[in-house]
Amino acid sequence: MSDLTLYLAPGTCAMAVRIALVEAGAPHRLKLVDFSVAEQRSPAYLAINPKGRVPALVTERGVLTETPALLLYVAQRFPAVGLAPLDDPFLLARMQEVNSFLASTVHVSHAHGRRGSRWADDEQAIAAMQAKMPQNMRDGFAEIEHHYLAGPWVLGDRFSLADIYLYVVASWLKSDGVAIDEFPKVAAHTARMLARPAVQQALII
Amino acid sequence: MSDLTLYLAPGTCAMAVRIALVEAGAPHRLKLVDFSVAEQRSPAYLAINPKGRVPALVTERGVLTETPALLLYVAQRFPAVGLAPLDDPFLLARMQEVNSFLASTVHVSHAHGRRGSRWADDEQAIAAMQAKMPQNMRDGFAEIEHHYLAGPWVLGDRFSLADIYLYVVASWLKSDGVAIDEFPKVAAHTARMLARPAVQQALII
Repeated sequence: MSDLTLYLAPGTCAMAVRIALVEAGAPHRLKLVDFSVAEQRSPAYLAINPKGRVPALVTERGVLTETPALLLYVAQRFPAVGLAPLDDPFLLARMQEVNSFLASTVHVSHAHGRRGSRWADDEQAIAAMQAKMPQNMRDGFAEIEHHYLAGPWVLGDRFSLADIYLYVVASWLKSDGVAIDEFPKVAAHTARMLARPAVQQALII
Repeated sequence: MSDLTLYLAPGTCAMAVRIALVEAGAPHRLKLVDFSVAEQRSPAYLAINPKGRVPALVTERGVLTETPALLLYVAQRFPAVGLAPLDDPFLLARMQEVNSFLASTVHVSHAHGRRGSRWADDEQAIAAMQAKMPQNMRDGFAEIEHHYLAGPWVLGDRFSLADIYLYVVASWLKSDGVAIDEFPKVAAHTARMLARPAVQQALII
């Protein structure tokens, strides 16, 4: 048995953890964090995650954060579902490589489009970051298209956490001003993800 | 047996993988990538890592990249050394949480000090990012000091990959204009790391 509560907001990377939980068949509760009123900065939420971000997963043993860590946690807590190649160090490292690239490079590129104030105070600088963001998203997805999507899934025939995370990050392309059709393999991957019953179910929050 | 070659440069996060390999007692070769002549952008290196960054680890089955992924790979390839709590999902997730925070937030903060051109083309914007970088490093290390360093190691009594990665990122504070003594637990942690024979050995490259 498990007792898990996921704090999340629609449109954020926390959706990847939500999808992983549904794919895993893991019982869990959802708590929506209302970004429109900056609830992620409220004292109540900061007591859960002092970083003021989603996702946060409340477990029986404490609160965990950071999307790549939570994804692996779900796979390890519910190993029978096979969301990660836990017993194959090379394949697991490949999956983690993709997840790490998505978190540290692609998500960071995306964040410069709307949260540039994290890295500069000057309005003109924030505008300059916004201007460069679409090209950085293109560069990141070109990397994925050409090197990280064996097909049909990231790891080839084997569905994994990297597919879930990739799908969520790819869902940001449109609002970032990049047409997903520039990356045919990524576009087909998104269609494949949206055909999965667990993904369809997970998007209802 | 293992056949591993690590591409790295001094002063980069790739040093964490080097330390992990030495801690694990893993036979490996080193290949220095000369950033002073932009070797990371040379055709020969881009054939190894198209992202043009270090680390890259050449294994028997292919090339792996991204520091958090490589660290976990070393732990899983050499499990007897116990560099990661592989069989404890919660503790492993905590370790991965710290590693992910270091990669996606703290390393990214650091990069804005010297590689702002990744995120904006405008000189003034790049200067604005440099100006804000030290405060972002302070914020990141305050988080570590207060929430992520149980002591003596990140996970408490148990030494892990998170200690290795934290040590390397903390070694950047001085050049980032932040005194490590602002964070007494981090400073003591660095001293503890430098007392380890494997760390001393790993720093000789």
